[in-house]
Amino acid sequence: MGGHGHPYSPAELELPGFVPQRLSQGEILAPFLAASLLVVLAVWLISGRCGGRLSRTDRSLMCWWAFTGLTHIVLAGSFLFFTPDFFSKENPSYFDELFKEYSKGDSRYAARDTVILALEVITIGFKGPASLLAVYAIATRKSYSYILQFAACLCQLYGCLVYFTTASLAGFNFWASPFYFWAYFVGANSPWVVIPTLVATRSWKKISARSIPS
Amino acid sequence: MGGHGHPYSPAELELPGFVPQRLSQGEILAPFLAASLLVVLAVWLISGRCGGRLSRTDRSLMCWWAFTGLTHIVLAGSFLFFTPDFFSKENPSYFDELFKEYSKGDSRYAARDTVILALEVITIGFKGPASLLAVYAIATRKSYSYILQFAACLCQLYGCLVYFTTASLAGFNFWASPFYFWAYFVGANSPWVVIPTLVATRSWKKISARSIPS
Repeated sequence: MGGHGHPYSPAELELPGFVPQRLSQGEILAPFLAASLLVVLAVWLISGRCGGRLSRTDRSLMCWWAFTGLTHIVLAGSFLFFTPDFFSKENPSYFDELFKEYSKGDSRYAARDTVILALEVITIGFKGPASLLAVYAIATRKSYSYILQFAACLCQLYGCLVYFTTASLAGFNFWASPFYFWAYFVGANSPWVVIPTLVATRSWKKISARSIPS
Repeated sequence: MGGHGHPYSPAELELPGFVPQRLSQGEILAPFLAASLLVVLAVWLISGRCGGRLSRTDRSLMCWWAFTGLTHIVLAGSFLFFTPDFFSKENPSYFDELFKEYSKGDSRYAARDTVILALEVITIGFKGPASLLAVYAIATRKSYSYILQFAACLCQLYGCLVYFTTASLAGFNFWASPFYFWAYFVGANSPWVVIPTLVATRSWKKISARSIPS
């Protein structure tokens, strides 16, 4: 822990009243991974029974959109509404501890940086609801299914681009160590670069495959 | 002019070596409007002759994409590459003066705020080229025309959302007076909210009008 009473970088970051983290990395990651697995499993099983002739690709996409939609809403929601002073709470909740842990990879969360707040507002206001709507749109074969998935992917990619570009321009020194840089800043965010790129490309091709009259 | 030698808000903003603006508002706006009108007129006339059976809507959209694409590339380009120290240049160019004038509506430009820089990087890297590609795609009736226009619109809207949300969260005090708030911060940006909303809605409807096989 640095001279400023917290484990984050840069050390000059002021976090008055910082309460040290109590849960370990494993105690934070395990419930998140277990809950995610439960969501994916539930959507996979339900989509197999109710949907009729949904392809495996469609069912996999439903799992992804349910997982990412709930992650967007639960994490952005708890960051914005329930844990604004998460680093100084005397009796921290699971989510307070989760954001303390993630801040080791990007201390702009602990600092409540304007860019992070703006991105989380857009995440809970648009990306989360759009992702959950995509689950429904795929299940019911709506005609707007591909364009909706494309829109949600593009917003995720644009959000990541703003997230990484601002970090780069603002000093690129927000991680406590190279481990947290690779594991959290790069690793934990990379699914939201790779998967939206794949899904957006697929949607683009499906939409362009048919010429549409003007 | 405030006590810190510049006309911007907040007055505490430090701009060492600030050189006062020489061109008037009219001298800055007139060339911009004239050049924009010239681009729109040229695209309208050329699209009427070469394109064959392009509808008036398609020709109008080509004018918009040419205008917005060139605006994105020329303004973001001059802000990022040619005028990094625009407020302190002894012999300011037209673009230096333009950004001095616009900074009265949003001093984050003069301050070279991280968010502004990130948005301009994305503007010149993606929005500008995508807009110009849309001119070509409409003219040649490419099958990806609607999805490309939709993507470019969504990026413009997401950019505006980040732009306005971060201003709001960072203090909402970046304009020199209510006039500059309404004329520049709101007025000059509103076309990039209104028109992309209309074009994105149209593209969404065109794409959703035909159900696409999975």
